[in-house]
Amino acid sequence: MIDLYTFTTPNGRKASIMLEEVGVPYQVHVIDITKGDQFSEEFVAINPNSKIPAIVDHDTKITVFESGAILLYLAEKTGALMLTDQVGRYQVLEWLMLQMGSVGPMFGQLNHFKKFAPEKIPYAIERYEKETLRLYGVLDGQLAKHEYLAGEYTIADIATFPWVATYEFQGLTLDKHPNLKRWFEAINQRPAVQKGMNVPERK
Amino acid sequence: MIDLYTFTTPNGRKASIMLEEVGVPYQVHVIDITKGDQFSEEFVAINPNSKIPAIVDHDTKITVFESGAILLYLAEKTGALMLTDQVGRYQVLEWLMLQMGSVGPMFGQLNHFKKFAPEKIPYAIERYEKETLRLYGVLDGQLAKHEYLAGEYTIADIATFPWVATYEFQGLTLDKHPNLKRWFEAINQRPAVQKGMNVPERK
Repeated sequence: MIDLYTFTTPNGRKASIMLEEVGVPYQVHVIDITKGDQFSEEFVAINPNSKIPAIVDHDTKITVFESGAILLYLAEKTGALMLTDQVGRYQVLEWLMLQMGSVGPMFGQLNHFKKFAPEKIPYAIERYEKETLRLYGVLDGQLAKHEYLAGEYTIADIATFPWVATYEFQGLTLDKHPNLKRWFEAINQRPAVQKGMNVPERK
Repeated sequence: MIDLYTFTTPNGRKASIMLEEVGVPYQVHVIDITKGDQFSEEFVAINPNSKIPAIVDHDTKITVFESGAILLYLAEKTGALMLTDQVGRYQVLEWLMLQMGSVGPMFGQLNHFKKFAPEKIPYAIERYEKETLRLYGVLDGQLAKHEYLAGEYTIADIATFPWVATYEFQGLTLDKHPNLKRWFEAINQRPAVQKGMNVPERK
């Protein structure tokens, strides 16, 4: 049994999609980041960075924070959704790291400045919208040559999907990036993805 | 022999420090991102995301982009600077991912808005300065309990060091975070780090 500490954000959904895909039983603990739950003493003991998601695996007594580390942990625990030949392994890691270092942070800054910031700052909105669209182009180019980011469906796709899924919320479209759109629609139809995207359940 | 495509940035220096630490012979190829070298057809074939660093390992014929993936590749190639027990392995990955997803992107946005943006936007400067200082606190807390981020000196430290090293450039100080400062000074004295921080050599 795994305890999953999460909330309704793209990073949280990476972990719940992965848990649904690999079929490991898990219990959801809602950390409501709009109410400051992430700063509680109990949660800081699990993740000193006060961010969701985090997991505690009671089989191994291991705690893991950072969504990218959680995906690697669960892939290695179950032997699923990771490529194990040398070339494939580093392709998965490249695209996972690109998600962690660029897709997540940059799409996240666009969310902030376009949707949440108390003042509308045209320079910042334009900066992050331009970078988001540039990254759409990078993903689209890879997906023109490969069905999934590292060839087969892996944790690199699971990391990237929930961030691409914010495109409507961000006022963007995938229509100009047909390979990215095809990839998005294929993943969006997976039952495990649909279940994972609804964790924690919206009331 | 490894070809290293890099420039004088924190992400580039992660790779050169690692190559110096593990003692693998490498040849530096300067990709001058101030002149747009990263968009050349030759470099895009190596990294479709047009970012340094990237490596080509002629022993294995493997190309790796994204600094976090390069660190893992070189650690696994050489058996160095990674913890291999299960608990330690995921501690390294957690702090490596925290660097990739938060330390790099957020310190990078502070650099942009404080030093490079054509207009000074107080909201954005304050946002990223506050987040940088929050992350100093998270790192300092971990380093109060451990000599290095994952206990021993690993790729998690190598990933984080060049970003912390920008503190003076960012107009910040480490003086209020004594454990982070102690860690910074210890790593800063390593000969491999000093060599790696000077790649590509400044003329």
